[in-house]
Amino acid sequence: MIGRLNHVAIAVPDLTAAANQYRAALGAKVGAPQDEPDHGVTVVFIELPNTKIELLYPLGDDSPINGFLEKNPSGGIHHVCYEVDDIIAARDHLKETGARVLGSGDPKIGAHGKPVLFLHPKDFNGCLVELEQV
Amino acid sequence: MIGRLNHVAIAVPDLTAAANQYRAALGAKVGAPQDEPDHGVTVVFIELPNTKIELLYPLGDDSPINGFLEKNPSGGIHHVCYEVDDIIAARDHLKETGARVLGSGDPKIGAHGKPVLFLHPKDFNGCLVELEQV
Repeated sequence: MIGRLNHVAIAVPDLTAAANQYRAALGAKVGAPQDEPDHGVTVVFIELPNTKIELLYPLGDDSPINGFLEKNPSGGIHHVCYEVDDIIAARDHLKETGARVLGSGDPKIGAHGKPVLFLHPKDFNGCLVELEQV
Repeated sequence: MIGRLNHVAIAVPDLTAAANQYRAALGAKVGAPQDEPDHGVTVVFIELPNTKIELLYPLGDDSPINGFLEKNPSGGIHHVCYEVDDIIAARDHLKETGARVLGSGDPKIGAHGKPVLFLHPKDFNGCLVELEQV
C-alpha cells in the first residue's frame, strides 16, 4: 500500500541556522522558507536525490510544532510521510487494523496541496506517520 | 556533500509486531530479521521504492537501543542516514564547521558492510545523523 517515502520532517528551533547548516555543513540543496499558515508552520525543503527533508518551524501561537519544541528544545525528527495512491482506501484499511487517525479522520489538504492524514504515533512505534495521496 | 537518504531507523519495542504491521497494515515489502551482534541490534528492513526503513530492536544488554527504548517505551524515530562519497572528507569538513562526531571519530563498518559515522544529535537539531560511505 505505502509507496515512496515522500519526506522526513525535522522540527528545528532556529530555521535559518538549520537551513544554513544543511546548505554549508552538509552540502545539500536547500530551498527558501515557505510560510504555511493553514498548517501553522514555516517549512524549508532539503532536496536529496531520492526524497526530501522538511525542516519545520512554528508559525503562530497555535502551531502544532510548539508543543514538540517545548518537549524537545534542540529539535527532533517529527514525522515521516509515506505516499499512497488512494488515501481513503488506505485510511479505511488502517482503521480496520485498529490504527487511529488523528483529527476528524478526513483528509486535509497538506503543505504540498495534496490530501494528507496523520496516524497516531502510539499505534506506529512512537513514530508519527503522515500519509499523502500522490 | 550528502547524497541519498539511505534509510530512516525506527526503534521498536516489539520487532515481530512492528514487522507484521508494516507488512499487513501498511502493505510494505518487509525483510527477515537480521542479527547484527557488532552493533547490538536486530534489524528488519522495509523496502520502499526510493529508500528503506530500518526497524531496530535491541540485541544484548549493551545495545545502544536500550536507553532509547527506556526513554521512549512505545519506540520512536532513532536516526536518519545520509549517503556520502568520501566519509573521511565529509567528517573533516563537518568537524571544521563545529559538528561533533560520536565515538572515536573514526568510521566503523556499519550494518550494510560499509563505513559509517554518527554525528552528535545536539549539533543537528536533535536528530541523530548517520553518514554512510557508498
